[in-house]
Amino acid sequence: MAGNTSVPGATVASRLLALLRAFDGNHHRLTLTELARRAELPVPTAHRLIAELVAGGALDRDDGGYRLGRLLWEVGLHAQIHGRLRRIAEPYLYDAYAATMATVHLAVRDGDQALYLLAVRGPASTPVVSSVGSRLPLHATGVGKVLLAHSPDALRERLAAGLIRVTAHTITHAPVLAAQLERIRCDGMATTAEEMTLGACSLAVPVFRASDGSVAAAIGVVVGTLRHDRQRMLAALHTAACGVGRRL
Amino acid sequence: MAGNTSVPGATVASRLLALLRAFDGNHHRLTLTELARRAELPVPTAHRLIAELVAGGALDRDDGGYRLGRLLWEVGLHAQIHGRLRRIAEPYLYDAYAATMATVHLAVRDGDQALYLLAVRGPASTPVVSSVGSRLPLHATGVGKVLLAHSPDALRERLAAGLIRVTAHTITHAPVLAAQLERIRCDGMATTAEEMTLGACSLAVPVFRASDGSVAAAIGVVVGTLRHDRQRMLAALHTAACGVGRRL
Repeated sequence: MAGNTSVPGATVASRLLALLRAFDGNHHRLTLTELARRAELPVPTAHRLIAELVAGGALDRDDGGYRLGRLLWEVGLHAQIHGRLRRIAEPYLYDAYAATMATVHLAVRDGDQALYLLAVRGPASTPVVSSVGSRLPLHATGVGKVLLAHSPDALRERLAAGLIRVTAHTITHAPVLAAQLERIRCDGMATTAEEMTLGACSLAVPVFRASDGSVAAAIGVVVGTLRHDRQRMLAALHTAACGVGRRL
Repeated sequence: MAGNTSVPGATVASRLLALLRAFDGNHHRLTLTELARRAELPVPTAHRLIAELVAGGALDRDDGGYRLGRLLWEVGLHAQIHGRLRRIAEPYLYDAYAATMATVHLAVRDGDQALYLLAVRGPASTPVVSSVGSRLPLHATGVGKVLLAHSPDALRERLAAGLIRVTAHTITHAPVLAAQLERIRCDGMATTAEEMTLGACSLAVPVFRASDGSVAAAIGVVVGTLRHDRQRMLAALHTAACGVGRRL
């Protein structure tokens, strides 16, 4: 955008958002220098804007560095990204966790990735790479396979051309994946075996909207092995998916 | 601050934050006029800044109005308000829910209120007024009484002078509350009976830091009645509180 000086608000807003974007799951605390570099701002500019964000409660000073502040936590709680779906699904996921004690996820398709909206895991649940807000490849996760199986043909064809390998077990051969997706549509469930993370298997089911039968989301569990308790986990997932779908 | 025109960033930052603050639990979607009014900005100024926030992903247009956008959801996920405590406590709260099927809360003292950091509730749990981010009076909630019992004397004395009545059952007589808090310190648990919400009772325990024995938080359940299952709920709460405290 040309003419920065004539539209000061325009550039200030984008610079402020760049400062907020500098924080992520691996960067909870940043120094002034790090913030300026990650936001691509001159240090004096960053310094001035950071002072404003601190004054407004958007950032907190922390031992010579900065953290995202309370205002952004509170604003984030009200950011309605799939808010209705999350609010409806949350209690059903807790019940699915109570029935399985496994990590339970709710995910939706976000372009060509699975976006994790909720994650419930206990002290003894299998460790996973995903957390709320994560995006993972559709073809390598249980919830992702469910979502991909119910995606438009065009997306499946496009993705088939470049199935990235995450582990040695990831399915990267397009015809094998196509056959699996076909079976997933028939069976109403998807599984993965160490395709995203070594030592982790998953089982997932679709959430059908009661109104039109379309797939709104997927609910899945991640466990160390699918050899035990599969029927019990599937029952818990179906109970949750029905409960959510009926209310959508 | 005088001299707005000489420090455009200063006022723009505070105006942008005022726009974000305009959203809350009861205002998920706002029109331009509503946004301008709640942020106390002239409509043309609000319009220009909103356009910038939309361009940056901080707001989404929605059918003639605006909602908080994905960027703020993601930023909010990384806002570390008691982040370590929340991350450590989350799985233990899920287990406490699995053991009780009651609404389970984690709260800390925030000045003279209880701030709710986590809330786990199932489809059949007793309805409650609190949600994550809520602040409730210390003397009217189970987690609040635990936190108040372990607060500095000065705070207890100050609050005793003005105990607000929430329901007909709220304890507003200072000596009665003082005796309860004394017993809570002895027993290691607090109860409430319809003192915050009619039809809801609560049971809460402190989370002691293993390092120095100070109280870091409180974990509580909300149920319709405490006449049944009290020992089982207390055992679940103690298990969770010990698990969290050991890791702090």
